[in-house]
Amino acid sequence: MHASARQKLEHRLQPILDLLRKQGLVEQLIDRSEEDRHSLGAELLHRQHHQELRRKLAHLHPADVTHLLEMLPPDERSAVWGSVPASMAGAILAEASDPVAEGLIEETASDRLLNICEAMDPDDLGFIDDMLPTAIREELVGGMAERDRSWHETTVNYPEHSVGYLMTRDMLLIEAGATVRDTLKYLRSLEDFPDHTDQLFVVDERRHLLGALPLKALFLNPLKTPVSELAMPAPTVFMPEQDASEAGQAFDRYDLVSAPVVDSRDRILGRLTVDVVMNFLREEAEEDAFLREGLRRDEDLFGPVIESARSRWMWLALNLMTAFVASRVIGLFEGSIEKLVALATLMPIVASIGGNTGNQTVALVVRGLALSQINRENLRYLALKELGISVMNGLIWGSIMGAVAWLLYQNPELGLVMAAATLCNLIVAAAAGIVVPIVLDRLERDPALGSSVVLTFITDSMGFFIFLGLATFMVQGQSA
Amino acid sequence: MHASARQKLEHRLQPILDLLRKQGLVEQLIDRSEEDRHSLGAELLHRQHHQELRRKLAHLHPADVTHLLEMLPPDERSAVWGSVPASMAGAILAEASDPVAEGLIEETASDRLLNICEAMDPDDLGFIDDMLPTAIREELVGGMAERDRSWHETTVNYPEHSVGYLMTRDMLLIEAGATVRDTLKYLRSLEDFPDHTDQLFVVDERRHLLGALPLKALFLNPLKTPVSELAMPAPTVFMPEQDASEAGQAFDRYDLVSAPVVDSRDRILGRLTVDVVMNFLREEAEEDAFLREGLRRDEDLFGPVIESARSRWMWLALNLMTAFVASRVIGLFEGSIEKLVALATLMPIVASIGGNTGNQTVALVVRGLALSQINRENLRYLALKELGISVMNGLIWGSIMGAVAWLLYQNPELGLVMAAATLCNLIVAAAAGIVVPIVLDRLERDPALGSSVVLTFITDSMGFFIFLGLATFMVQGQSA
Repeated sequence: MHASARQKLEHRLQPILDLLRKQGLVEQLIDRSEEDRHSLGAELLHRQHHQELRRKLAHLHPADVTHLLEMLPPDERSAVWGSVPASMAGAILAEASDPVAEGLIEETASDRLLNICEAMDPDDLGFIDDMLPTAIREELVGGMAERDRSWHETTVNYPEHSVGYLMTRDMLLIEAGATVRDTLKYLRSLEDFPDHTDQLFVVDERRHLLGALPLKALFLNPLKTPVSELAMPAPTVFMPEQDASEAGQAFDRYDLVSAPVVDSRDRILGRLTVDVVMNFLREEAEEDAFLREGLRRDEDLFGPVIESARSRWMWLALNLMTAFVASRVIGLFEGSIEKLVALATLMPIVASIGGNTGNQTVALVVRGLALSQINRENLRYLALKELGISVMNGLIWGSIMGAVAWLLYQNPELGLVMAAATLCNLIVAAAAGIVVPIVLDRLERDPALGSSVVLTFITDSMGFFIFLGLATFMVQGQSA
Repeated sequence: MHASARQKLEHRLQPILDLLRKQGLVEQLIDRSEEDRHSLGAELLHRQHHQELRRKLAHLHPADVTHLLEMLPPDERSAVWGSVPASMAGAILAEASDPVAEGLIEETASDRLLNICEAMDPDDLGFIDDMLPTAIREELVGGMAERDRSWHETTVNYPEHSVGYLMTRDMLLIEAGATVRDTLKYLRSLEDFPDHTDQLFVVDERRHLLGALPLKALFLNPLKTPVSELAMPAPTVFMPEQDASEAGQAFDRYDLVSAPVVDSRDRILGRLTVDVVMNFLREEAEEDAFLREGLRRDEDLFGPVIESARSRWMWLALNLMTAFVASRVIGLFEGSIEKLVALATLMPIVASIGGNTGNQTVALVVRGLALSQINRENLRYLALKELGISVMNGLIWGSIMGAVAWLLYQNPELGLVMAAATLCNLIVAAAAGIVVPIVLDRLERDPALGSSVVLTFITDSMGFFIFLGLATFMVQGQSA
């Protein structure tokens, strides 16, 4: 029986974890004072472990070492990073999540860092550029060949979520006048192809993009065919300013492996490849899951406590404020609660059911917006549908909760209030579930992030208000 | 200035939306009775519109037509689907989300459906196989060539989230004895290459996988080189039973375009390609966002109301039950609330802040589990960190809320209770935020889906219990 990919990865990493744990390597070295470490025995032990670690790491794929680093607490992470071969270190910095890469850069001595960065490919370097100390950055840029420098300066100036930031200049260009034979000759002259080369780009002498030539066309066609005949006339083309998540949708929709990036005059600037796009989409999804809960987009699982605690303050404050306002709504009705304490017990149910169903509508609308499936025409249909569902469910589940309240407190009027408030809050929830994400989208805020907080605030406050308001009429009616 | 991809798509689809809306084509045809529709004028209008629609649709990419169908309410969706060229219809069914594809299949006449399916490639057919009426399915399988049939039966029998379900048999194999020259000759003899061919697989005479030969190696090496020398010895290999999301992580981590799928004896069965993997990852993420809110994984934005309402009952019932239990916790303390009605006003704040911070811990742990970054060794570190954060934030924000409660009700003891309860519930939230997803993971349930409901239940109930329990001591102390 073959092992799964996850098991295989664990299997590859286990010897290193064992090494780290069993011999208590790291704790020993960190806890020991400077002189002690240099005593002969400790020094030998240190070297021996370091070499074993280094040997084991050298056999792993850089992506696997990155994974290992991300799952280690700070001390062990440092020990492993110190043993990573210099040839692999650059790939790891480019692959690691931002806070992990930042931490690693911080603890690397300047000369080692400079060596690592000098060996990096300019595309990879662009991804960590903003984390490097200014001195290192200046030294690097100063040491670059002119062509590398201008490329580096181009890409780092595009925002992080843009096509320009993600594009590579590694691509194969061929002039329109060439034949299949010329192209094959050119390709044979190369030492290697850029990664993810599924097509060549056909250009004129001023690098205007004329079309894309799939590699397979070179196998399938006679040698004398001009490439201009084989090039597809209108491949999917991106602009560097474009949002990378749009490019991601296009890669997904049209099954692309690579696509050209051009400037406003259709001159080719670079190329976007599926690996970078896929990586971007995964990171974006992970970041969204974090931002939705008010975590920093790059919170490090094993980062320092104080930094993590402080980064969560804004979110705590925001949530306390909304909870406080909802609580003031309750405060308005303290008189009624004093007369009938059952209201305090039942009110969270009305608020909670509104929040849960409203968030369902939010999830539907957010996906519809993300996939551009919602427009003015079908919005009315969608709104009527969600309101229809909430009326239907409000009648059914409101009745059930009303009956429960009636039986529990032997108070039929309280049951009626419970049923009516549940129905009304479900309608509020459906309406808010549609309106909130759409308004955020119109305001150019990401509806996937803010909608839930706003919606829960509305359904909580309105749930309390509707239920306690209706109950106040009832209580006053009874006492009158 | 160039338009963005989203604008371009909207631009391509707009003429069709205009056609549908402006002329009220669909509503007219649907609302009209059968005889009326066959009156000469209506018939002419119908034909004219149908032809215009058909002409416009024929110019679009199938993925764009799918997008259009998914954003249309039922009636217009039917009208467009009826005008889709038969040659494009199969690709649309394979591309559309499940409920949309199901709806389209349901409304297609048997003979048209059979025609569409017969023209589909067996891989695509596998994706909609379970939605087809039995009669159609049997007729299709009966009409297949032996090789197609056995492939079809192989893939449809793998579960939907497995590598086997997603793999294609379209791949290029080359025997180990061949040279580069032989391979080029073989490739030139083909009419076309399978999509996403970045490598050939080198096999022995019994189809055992010996290695992978990147296409570029054929350009870069002399004609007489044996392919066995050029093949990479250990490419990433998948088994058909393997979970597709694991394969997705491997494609992302190792930047793959294609990878071989083999049986337990290393014989090659098929191939996994990046387009299918990317599509799977996107759908999985979308489904998770829905399942997290208790929506059916394939809820159709414009599906029928009753079906949608019913599919949400389980979720409503579950949430009502947890809210009801939390409410019974409040019920235990009705005596204290009667004595001090401010408790009813303040208690939702304590519950709410616990839920919000607990869900932050859940988000961190869920991502850590998904990326296999959490194991027994680092769990203790993570738990201590989250508890540390909750104590720190509990002291700070608990004090603030305590001070607010004190000032608001001029009751210093109430302030103390508020502060202590906030601190305690934050600690409960951190502990539950770690334990709940890890327990769900051990029970082989997806922690991304169930954790939030369970956590909110715990932080609500415990928030009420801690706050009202502490307050009861205080109230009793005051009255004693």
